Amino acid sequence: MLSTMQDGPLSLAKLLRHGTKVHAASEVITWTGSEARRETYADLGKHAARLAHALRSLGVTGDQRVGTFMWNNAEHLAAYLAVPAMGAVLHTLNIRLFPEQLTFVANHAEDHVVIVDGTLVPLLAKNLSGMKTVKHVIVANGDASALAAPEGVTVHSYDELLAGQPDEFEWPEIDERSAAAMCYTSGTTGDPKGVVYSHRSIWLHSMQVCMSDSMRLAQEDTALAIVPMFHAMSWGLPYAALMVGASLLMPDRFLQPAPIAALLAAEKPTFAAAVPTIWQGLLAHLDTNPQDISHLREVVVGGSAAPPALMHAFEERYGVPILHAWGMTETSPLGSVARPPASATGEQRWGYRYTQGRFPASVSARLIDDDGQERDWDNEAVGELEVSGPWIAGGYYGGSDGAPSPDPEKFHGGWLRTGDVGKISQDGFLTLTDRAKDVIKSGGEWISSVDLENQVMGHPAVAEAAVVGIPDEKWDERPLVAVVVREGESVTAEQLRDYLADKVAKWQLPENWTFVPEVPKTSVGKFDKKRIRASYSEGKLDISQF
Amino acid sequence: MLSTMQDGPLSLAKLLRHGTKVHAASEVITWTGSEARRETYADLGKHAARLAHALRSLGVTGDQRVGTFMWNNAEHLAAYLAVPAMGAVLHTLNIRLFPEQLTFVANHAEDHVVIVDGTLVPLLAKNLSGMKTVKHVIVANGDASALAAPEGVTVHSYDELLAGQPDEFEWPEIDERSAAAMCYTSGTTGDPKGVVYSHRSIWLHSMQVCMSDSMRLAQEDTALAIVPMFHAMSWGLPYAALMVGASLLMPDRFLQPAPIAALLAAEKPTFAAAVPTIWQGLLAHLDTNPQDISHLREVVVGGSAAPPALMHAFEERYGVPILHAWGMTETSPLGSVARPPASATGEQRWGYRYTQGRFPASVSARLIDDDGQERDWDNEAVGELEVSGPWIAGGYYGGSDGAPSPDPEKFHGGWLRTGDVGKISQDGFLTLTDRAKDVIKSGGEWISSVDLENQVMGHPAVAEAAVVGIPDEKWDERPLVAVVVREGESVTAEQLRDYLADKVAKWQLPENWTFVPEVPKTSVGKFDKKRIRASYSEGKLDISQF
Repeated sequence: MLSTMQDGPLSLAKLLRHGTKVHAASEVITWTGSEARRETYADLGKHAARLAHALRSLGVTGDQRVGTFMWNNAEHLAAYLAVPAMGAVLHTLNIRLFPEQLTFVANHAEDHVVIVDGTLVPLLAKNLSGMKTVKHVIVANGDASALAAPEGVTVHSYDELLAGQPDEFEWPEIDERSAAAMCYTSGTTGDPKGVVYSHRSIWLHSMQVCMSDSMRLAQEDTALAIVPMFHAMSWGLPYAALMVGASLLMPDRFLQPAPIAALLAAEKPTFAAAVPTIWQGLLAHLDTNPQDISHLREVVVGGSAAPPALMHAFEERYGVPILHAWGMTETSPLGSVARPPASATGEQRWGYRYTQGRFPASVSARLIDDDGQERDWDNEAVGELEVSGPWIAGGYYGGSDGAPSPDPEKFHGGWLRTGDVGKISQDGFLTLTDRAKDVIKSGGEWISSVDLENQVMGHPAVAEAAVVGIPDEKWDERPLVAVVVREGESVTAEQLRDYLADKVAKWQLPENWTFVPEVPKTSVGKFDKKRIRASYSEGKLDISQF
Repeated sequence: MLSTMQDGPLSLAKLLRHGTKVHAASEVITWTGSEARRETYADLGKHAARLAHALRSLGVTGDQRVGTFMWNNAEHLAAYLAVPAMGAVLHTLNIRLFPEQLTFVANHAEDHVVIVDGTLVPLLAKNLSGMKTVKHVIVANGDASALAAPEGVTVHSYDELLAGQPDEFEWPEIDERSAAAMCYTSGTTGDPKGVVYSHRSIWLHSMQVCMSDSMRLAQEDTALAIVPMFHAMSWGLPYAALMVGASLLMPDRFLQPAPIAALLAAEKPTFAAAVPTIWQGLLAHLDTNPQDISHLREVVVGGSAAPPALMHAFEERYGVPILHAWGMTETSPLGSVARPPASATGEQRWGYRYTQGRFPASVSARLIDDDGQERDWDNEAVGELEVSGPWIAGGYYGGSDGAPSPDPEKFHGGWLRTGDVGKISQDGFLTLTDRAKDVIKSGGEWISSVDLENQVMGHPAVAEAAVVGIPDEKWDERPLVAVVVREGESVTAEQLRDYLADKVAKWQLPENWTFVPEVPKTSVGKFDKKRIRASYSEGKLDISQF
């Protein structure tokens, strides 16, 4: 029996029409370093129409890919709207990828056009000759003549190209399961993998961002989107803002603590989103340059685990609650959000808030052990987290002539294998303890590398510590700790081991230690444990063992 | 280009699993007149599984219809979950329909089973012999032996039928566009019309109920659902509550002001939903029996326009904001919600709050005039409201052997003609001024019957007044006012006309007046203008004309 409901698609053209008409007076506010430039959503709608006409004039048709190599600003937001709404596919290029990754993703996605911010022209120029399908580069917010294009590539000025284009565009009707946008994961193994979001998945995800169990983004918010628009769609804020009429505050390239503090003071946003390192930096700045930031009703932290000390500092010293969330490029990224249950009080609330959070109804979750068995939700049993739902990837982009790649290491039976290891409480709160590839499998038991790192980093002489598993004949694997000593301090491996003795189970105590000047990092600032393991196996590390 | 997103359906089986697992500790609380009986969502999940097994045991298969003839209580909620999740279709029977309408809808939907509350057995018994497809009646919360069944109908005790059934059910995977639930509109013309909601439409609508631009239903809420579960699915509260883990407070049959006040005192809900007459009654009760109700963070009012005086009384005397909303059975029902823009202050906020509200992104709206032309959103141009979206009906149920009825009077070109007439502001706020069939078309201009009614009811001697258009040779139509005089007062038509003289445009001043003991009402308590017009044309009204 069929329902009698209407059958129209969920589409970004509909979102664009809604946001720019019903919420015409809301604004995208772009920071210029000293002041803000403002565009109402009504004007943004016209801007997006001009951009769509300009892209058509360059031959963009069908589902061709349009790359962006941009900061968070009004021009990037116009591309977020115009490109999918015209039926093409937005490809946000991560400006922090290594050159070989950058050319790989542009070629794999077959980007036809790239829109680039003026200040990023030098970075793009180094890679452009390797991008074989790019025919046009549009330079926004800067001087197009600064770019010497390789043969076969035409360079355009964004302003000149859009000038005189019509303010309205006949946005086509699009099947909701069509591609709208794509983003490559900067995985630490192999080539980057493409995740392709649909109009449907983005629509549903945008609703979720505005729901009570997630970020509660609302019309009365001004949302500071520090998380880059090339990182998992800036966690969904741009589209969600258009959906409910929240204003968007865009920091452009001004991501250091002092300019962030300045734009907080000038624009007083009510909501913000960024990874922990941004908040760590801001906290240090504020502690020496006090400023009232209580206009922030809440800030969401994800990308990596938020340290409890950071959460307490923001709440107790600045009156700003940090909302902890978990997600990844493959999950659009909203996976779980740590809003404590109403029944929790006092310290209990903090306990819930430290976790990675609870799953919304659209995200189903399970924990799977080494034998493929599902584990209980008892906050003790540990397994690899698997998720499924309408904004969760079921495969990676297989290129224009290939079906999505099934990739059984990541996807099986309708579930995404997240590669994250953890436990879930009876009331559905997720606590991640490690990455599956980093967990140390010692004598049939799992040792969390992250737990060990946190314990070692608790020592006052330690600036950073990374723990990896190294092969062991007897136990399969044993932990190796790579320590960065704090400037002006000194400590020995033996002292650190003694320090750990009453903090971790005896069988988890590491025998292998090395001191390094710094922990290698990935392009997104996470510990690059693959490189530590490689250095170890190449014999490049000086190991203390006892 | 296809996205790489997973392709699973949005379904009520998924909602059931989520709500009863992740929000296992949340509760459905049913009022018994003096105290509450409580069931956790974990237990509700087992309850729903037992009900599904019981229904299967009665032969319910495929998409057969299961009717409910029930108050708002835990058993009705179990049916909301079990029936659609098992693949069958829930048909909520409106207990206030006239007998011929009730048998019509049960026969048209071909209900196979009806679940009835004990206290409603006498009412159902009167109609049961006319319900030709009903084979089983299940009596919940009462004595099954009190029902003498017609031949071919078996009567069951709910408790006995469910006892011993398994606590788990293998909920099937269902296409998201399949029928989940149906509700007939109690229109004032012709037979009731069936609206069939899909798993998809209910899922999306439930998300919307929890979004910042709608009711903001949240895990920390206890939601008092006064609006009946047979009226447009209790405005979506039951499913939305399971989605985010809000507890549900169910008043069962205790809908009078005193018991509502008692259950407010006992359970201190944070949110509530009902039509204006309920709030009017509660207000009168509270004014003579003061009670703190500030635990209500917000109450939503819809079904008919909320009088501004009611909104002020609740907010200023009891600290409870009334949230005005518009919708209808055909819109699931969430259409628009009156949350003022952040920029509005003071009296401006009230101005926005009196309106029917703003449309969420999923509901597109337009105003159409007599010539089929779209009108501007300038808060002046008046037209019939048309809406479209994923939880808006595109037709009526055509019976099991028919496609959905296209019904061009209600549906055209992918839009629902709401039958409501009004205007929309530039920032998207809807103000309804009349029903399309009640607007009075006089000399090419439209006179709002509702505006005239409100003006006449402003006179201290008037208890109620209804205005209808009657045929006029010169002007096509002219207004007729039917007045109910307040007890102990007296007033003449001439005095009322003088009273109106400086309140409405001269050409709108009514020439035709009649005094009646009461205004006839529909089964849902609205003025039944069809009956007033019929009385007029049958010459049954005593008209003063001047």
